[in-house]
Amino acid sequence: MSALVEPVARLIEAFARLPGIGPKTAQRLTFHLLRAPESEARTLAAALVAVRDEVVFCRTCFNISAGPECPICLDPARDDERLCVVEEPLDVLALERTRAFRGRYHVLHGAISPIDGIGPDRLRIRELLDRAGERASVGQPFQEIILATNPTLEGEATAMYLAERLDGQVQSVTRIARGLPVGGDLEYADEVTLVRSLQGRRAFDAPLER
Amino acid sequence: MSALVEPVARLIEAFARLPGIGPKTAQRLTFHLLRAPESEARTLAAALVAVRDEVVFCRTCFNISAGPECPICLDPARDDERLCVVEEPLDVLALERTRAFRGRYHVLHGAISPIDGIGPDRLRIRELLDRAGERASVGQPFQEIILATNPTLEGEATAMYLAERLDGQVQSVTRIARGLPVGGDLEYADEVTLVRSLQGRRAFDAPLER
Repeated sequence: MSALVEPVARLIEAFARLPGIGPKTAQRLTFHLLRAPESEARTLAAALVAVRDEVVFCRTCFNISAGPECPICLDPARDDERLCVVEEPLDVLALERTRAFRGRYHVLHGAISPIDGIGPDRLRIRELLDRAGERASVGQPFQEIILATNPTLEGEATAMYLAERLDGQVQSVTRIARGLPVGGDLEYADEVTLVRSLQGRRAFDAPLER
Repeated sequence: MSALVEPVARLIEAFARLPGIGPKTAQRLTFHLLRAPESEARTLAAALVAVRDEVVFCRTCFNISAGPECPICLDPARDDERLCVVEEPLDVLALERTRAFRGRYHVLHGAISPIDGIGPDRLRIRELLDRAGERASVGQPFQEIILATNPTLEGEATAMYLAERLDGQVQSVTRIARGLPVGGDLEYADEVTLVRSLQGRRAFDAPLER
């Protein structure tokens, strides 16, 4: 039996190592690139190298950045008093798209998950506590730190852990609201979401704070 | 609103150009590679470049190859009298795994599909007819050419076209059997497959030819 030629086998293997890409998809992608114009494979290869050569993490908030500090940390127009803590750089993107938050960010790069062996020391939690502690030590604690980790088991555990550790270092620690998604249907909502939605109720027509 | 840093946006775009990879998956892959060990992105990049630098198509059968002729065409132990025509290099792999065919191959690189603008001239059909014609012209036509294009509309049309064009240039032109897949269930088979399965019936316990 003739095996696959070696460079093809190697590319299939490299694709199959990516999350959510199985051996069949890896084969399909490889053969697509063999048939596509040569530039397609080369563009992808160059983009891969560039992403590792040119992208770093912001030294302040650990968001992805092309320089030592990211555009959000460098932006003098943003609110220095509010800090939003998220799990991933993609969460920053999602929040920025809403244009509803004008403060700064802190990216943890994950959530506490004992089952996956991810403790607080594997995340950027030390750096967050330092950021809060430094401001508190000069008598200018953050007005608010918003814990915007995901409403999952791991995200909730992380938020709880952070709330405890930040206690006394910041004027107020808040958690993003959990409830029915806009456009959602009460009838089909799960119990936990419904409970959260009831617990989080507020006076009708309460003005939304910015 | 802060946009994505440019190298990240470029990698997402390059991933999203691949078939079956949408913008969300492209984002996920990109952020995975940002977090994964640096070698992962570099290995993939190197494999992509290698596949375009080192892989060519066999000049005889148009299968993928690391040299001008592929290992199957170079193998003196294979049966020169039988030729199996397939649409894609992956089909060669699938057939080789069965170890049931010891002849040579011819890869068309697609099937005739007028709706996609793919006529016979876009495939390696000219080369197949030349291969068959050359042997016929010296009085040694192929004993058998097996048309193993897919049992789809396009594959059947291609097989029909080839059977017509090969007529007189080869001792026999055959088509792979269409019927119920092994392990399949008659009750759930579609009509067309059932009809093919009836039409292709053979004497019970007929020995399978190699």
